[in-house]
Amino acid sequence: MDPSQVKIPPMKDLTPDNITPNTIIVNSQGPDKRLQYLLERLVTHLHDFARETRLTTEEWMAGILFLTAVGQICSDTRQEFILLSDTLGLSTLVENINHPKPSNATEGTVLGPFHTEDAAEFSHGDSICSDGKGEMCLVRCTLKDTSGRPISGASVDIWETDETGRYDTQYADRGHPDCRGILKTDSNGEFWFKAVRPVPYPIPHDGPVGKLLERLHRHPYRPSHMHFLITAEGYDTLVTSLYIRGDAYETSDAVFGVKSSLVIDMGKVGDAAVAEKYSVKADDWAINYDFVLVTEKEAVELKNKNALEALKALGSTATIVNGLPMADVD
Amino acid sequence: MDPSQVKIPPMKDLTPDNITPNTIIVNSQGPDKRLQYLLERLVTHLHDFARETRLTTEEWMAGILFLTAVGQICSDTRQEFILLSDTLGLSTLVENINHPKPSNATEGTVLGPFHTEDAAEFSHGDSICSDGKGEMCLVRCTLKDTSGRPISGASVDIWETDETGRYDTQYADRGHPDCRGILKTDSNGEFWFKAVRPVPYPIPHDGPVGKLLERLHRHPYRPSHMHFLITAEGYDTLVTSLYIRGDAYETSDAVFGVKSSLVIDMGKVGDAAVAEKYSVKADDWAINYDFVLVTEKEAVELKNKNALEALKALGSTATIVNGLPMADVD
Repeated sequence: MDPSQVKIPPMKDLTPDNITPNTIIVNSQGPDKRLQYLLERLVTHLHDFARETRLTTEEWMAGILFLTAVGQICSDTRQEFILLSDTLGLSTLVENINHPKPSNATEGTVLGPFHTEDAAEFSHGDSICSDGKGEMCLVRCTLKDTSGRPISGASVDIWETDETGRYDTQYADRGHPDCRGILKTDSNGEFWFKAVRPVPYPIPHDGPVGKLLERLHRHPYRPSHMHFLITAEGYDTLVTSLYIRGDAYETSDAVFGVKSSLVIDMGKVGDAAVAEKYSVKADDWAINYDFVLVTEKEAVELKNKNALEALKALGSTATIVNGLPMADVD
Repeated sequence: MDPSQVKIPPMKDLTPDNITPNTIIVNSQGPDKRLQYLLERLVTHLHDFARETRLTTEEWMAGILFLTAVGQICSDTRQEFILLSDTLGLSTLVENINHPKPSNATEGTVLGPFHTEDAAEFSHGDSICSDGKGEMCLVRCTLKDTSGRPISGASVDIWETDETGRYDTQYADRGHPDCRGILKTDSNGEFWFKAVRPVPYPIPHDGPVGKLLERLHRHPYRPSHMHFLITAEGYDTLVTSLYIRGDAYETSDAVFGVKSSLVIDMGKVGDAAVAEKYSVKADDWAINYDFVLVTEKEAVELKNKNALEALKALGSTATIVNGLPMADVD
């Protein structure tokens, strides 16, 4: 570009004391005031981190190589940066900030790195898992709004591991989606399907994130769970999971996803009439859950209210537009 | 691992208010108290960033995909994460923290992503660039300690772009190192060589970092410079560059590397006797510079003194070992 277009003050002789404001000035030349605010906070935290820790050149290089390795192991079916975000508690925090729930709605939790866009649509009663996978579990659910009215025609995207604790995407020879599927709620807001009894499993720990957990003496396990992503016109999308009570890792989930309200008892189908109705055995496993969605309007109002309260508590003086702080326009 | 080995308090129902201390506890199980401190500060800043910015799910995902792209474009000859660190001012900050210089020593600056380990060794007077590259520049330097005593036998690693502003590693068909070389200082602490007249150039901006700079309306240029990495037994390694005075980008270096003391006047060889002695033309370009190294001992003392002062000013209560803050051992 034409150097005469440089409109920033002279940047020379940068020291630990003046590098931060100068970097912020250089990043303040564009029209996107939200991006500018994100960069301002990012640069401030990044520099404060280095100043507070007296980050050594060797540690800086180890960080560079770690992040490079995290990026390089990513593929169409593996997202190691999401895994890093999950294991550092960032994912659950971002989920909480963006999808706050009133106390009468189903809580959300981490999406995780294993959701795909290619799940097939199933009919009520189908199994989302191919034949011969694990122990059969009948899942019967309802979907309602916070007033108890059924929500029909909603899309319910479900995914889980097989009985060995692996998602279909973790198999090199994945021919088609498995242990995942999409159902639509019926006119009563109900949906039911067959699946594999959830098992605990380690997050992928053969990569850089696994090595970090090992150095931190952390285990990589997630307790038994089944993922749900529920979308319905006019409602805030619900990303959640159901966790099976009594799992050995229930209170030490490697990705901080467990919420008490999402921990459920898994029993047996039991009743012979029910077994016959759903074409399962009385001895098969059974999960029942009633999901409750908030409207988009309720969710946005709660999110903006939380944002204003949090920013006030933090003493932020940033301009706030639609609940999001922005850099001031000079 | 055996779940009975889980020694942390129960982690459930994590909210924006309690996720940070809980993540820090989970990361505190290992024996490496320095790593633990780094993670404690990292997690605190990462979470504060999300809370302060009310980071949206879409922005979080854009960040995940950005970091993934940065990692994926890295190769044996391209380090986009170093470029990111450079353009965010982190590299110059880390260099400053780790290699503080007393006022009578040569200042350091950013290493950048183009140093390689395969430069050939040259004799005094050799050209480090292959024939036919750019305009000839004779470089004559001395290397001394802070008392003015010559340092002999030091290794001086030099690298620069060719006349088109590209490093050898930026050519897909790089057969051998070019425009880079290593010289040893002679018994008078002197070294001299021929090189290409430095030119300004854009940092690689065809990747994710370039796209970010564009969105921020930042130019990607570095002013004309030549890199030096000087190592000598008993002295603090000097990573520095010489910048040519009057360059259009002298005050807006994309990676914040310019220091007044490293900006030099580039003239012509001029004197016929000098030209004859060094087998160049009087009309060739000439650079002269006197480098001054600090001892390892001086550097470590200054670094530790700066660390203590900075941490005191920040109100840090961390345990400090060899100038580095650590997590407390419980």
